[in-house]
Amino acid sequence: MIVVRTVSDLRAALRGRRGGSIGLVPTMGALHEGHATLLRAARSADDTVVMTIFVNPAQFNEQSDLAAYPRTEDADLALAEAEGVDVVFAPDASEVYPDGFATTVSVSGPIAETLEGAERGRAHFDGVATVVTKLLLAALPDHAYFGAKDAQQVAVIRRFVADLGIPVTLVVCPTSRDADGLARSSRNTRLSPDERARALAIPRALTAVTDAAAAGVRRSDALRERALDVLAEALIQLEYVAFVDPETFAPVSSVDRPTLVAIAARVGATRLIDNAVIPPVPPTTGGA
Amino acid sequence: MIVVRTVSDLRAALRGRRGGSIGLVPTMGALHEGHATLLRAARSADDTVVMTIFVNPAQFNEQSDLAAYPRTEDADLALAEAEGVDVVFAPDASEVYPDGFATTVSVSGPIAETLEGAERGRAHFDGVATVVTKLLLAALPDHAYFGAKDAQQVAVIRRFVADLGIPVTLVVCPTSRDADGLARSSRNTRLSPDERARALAIPRALTAVTDAAAAGVRRSDALRERALDVLAEALIQLEYVAFVDPETFAPVSSVDRPTLVAIAARVGATRLIDNAVIPPVPPTTGGA
Repeated sequence: MIVVRTVSDLRAALRGRRGGSIGLVPTMGALHEGHATLLRAARSADDTVVMTIFVNPAQFNEQSDLAAYPRTEDADLALAEAEGVDVVFAPDASEVYPDGFATTVSVSGPIAETLEGAERGRAHFDGVATVVTKLLLAALPDHAYFGAKDAQQVAVIRRFVADLGIPVTLVVCPTSRDADGLARSSRNTRLSPDERARALAIPRALTAVTDAAAAGVRRSDALRERALDVLAEALIQLEYVAFVDPETFAPVSSVDRPTLVAIAARVGATRLIDNAVIPPVPPTTGGA
Repeated sequence: MIVVRTVSDLRAALRGRRGGSIGLVPTMGALHEGHATLLRAARSADDTVVMTIFVNPAQFNEQSDLAAYPRTEDADLALAEAEGVDVVFAPDASEVYPDGFATTVSVSGPIAETLEGAERGRAHFDGVATVVTKLLLAALPDHAYFGAKDAQQVAVIRRFVADLGIPVTLVVCPTSRDADGLARSSRNTRLSPDERARALAIPRALTAVTDAAAAGVRRSDALRERALDVLAEALIQLEYVAFVDPETFAPVSSVDRPTLVAIAARVGATRLIDNAVIPPVPPTTGGA
């Protein structure tokens, strides 16, 4: 496994490998089993697996969150090696944003401006879009792998990749969960045992919603009540429970097509997000 | 010569040609000798020459200017064929900006916000940056050719190409001029004979500035007066005479390094731009 710190070294490392397919797994480090799932997906599909580690300052809206974000490069490199990664690209901020840097890739509309875009500020998805564009253009992979937990980020990336015509196929892997149901996240390490127990209300609320939808509840308002009932018991600070189109993030009032239910909440000082896709409910037969 | 209308047809046309170098000449059509100069530069350097024709609505700040922009595709294709172009990419607006398009590439700072950016509005260079990013990613050329007449556009493109790491080398060709000195522009066809005669004050003003600089005048203020003296005689509506760093477009008050002098003016209803680079004046020997 090669570790490179500059775009030119990354390109040099990949130069001889373009005969086969290249898979890219962008990360902010602090790797966990969720990242390992992405690396395995890439390893099984691509001839060369590239992983990036970059804690992107541009996408953090809170300096305290950036400062507290876990940095565990030695452990990350060991995990990458164990998962068969070929090349790790781990640049400094000065390599990604040299003096004079002045370019932003920006997506407009509900996809980038609602939910995470509203809570974290417009700069968040601008930061994501700009750095992911740079990583994709640096590696020019055939496939890039993302986790479904960051559903809105995935939708934003899908949008600008299509709009700009970046030649890559996105692969979205299902959210990886611990045995208790909590979506894996680098931020979970900050939860106290009590906070972790309370955080489980988030996946339970998603299950309550998908169960109710499967049982025929169609109105987003009614489904939201099911989620709120579960979340209310857990003493967490809810930011949103939203029902949206998974591609455009336009609000959905009635679940008669695939709908994303997304939750964001603070548990203690830690902000967590999770989501599920509700499959379209087949219309019931018979009258009103 | 192949003419294609979609990105996927362009990529298909280039698939077998990546063994050699690819040169891209982006144009808005209405080709003239200036474009031919760019095509010849590409033809002499690259194995495959791709020319694009796209009148980009996103970069026009005035609907009347967009509507009046000359469209001469048959003549453009004949000129391209005569210059040995291999592939012409001439998409419709719906191919470049399909329904739901929501992405902008934006450069901030004086490079994009002063002079043309101030006169034509922020959307102008956003439109340029977004469409040129798309054209570069569609063709993935080794070289892309631009004319020095659009100096600020070139500086903006240089900036976002470096910032995003788009893998292309920019080639900037000297401004092509008619025998009377007027910089070639697709908009020149709109000038009446009288307007054209008055428009010659622009290149004359640039010559007055570079002559004065060569004679030892260093202060931009003093050099600007030389330009204004020439322009005042011509009854043209001056927008700016600016002295700036050619890369950053930061103002330059004393010409002791390479400095761009840029002029924009309206002659009748037609807006024209032109520029020259003033080489650094060697320091005079001796005392104050």
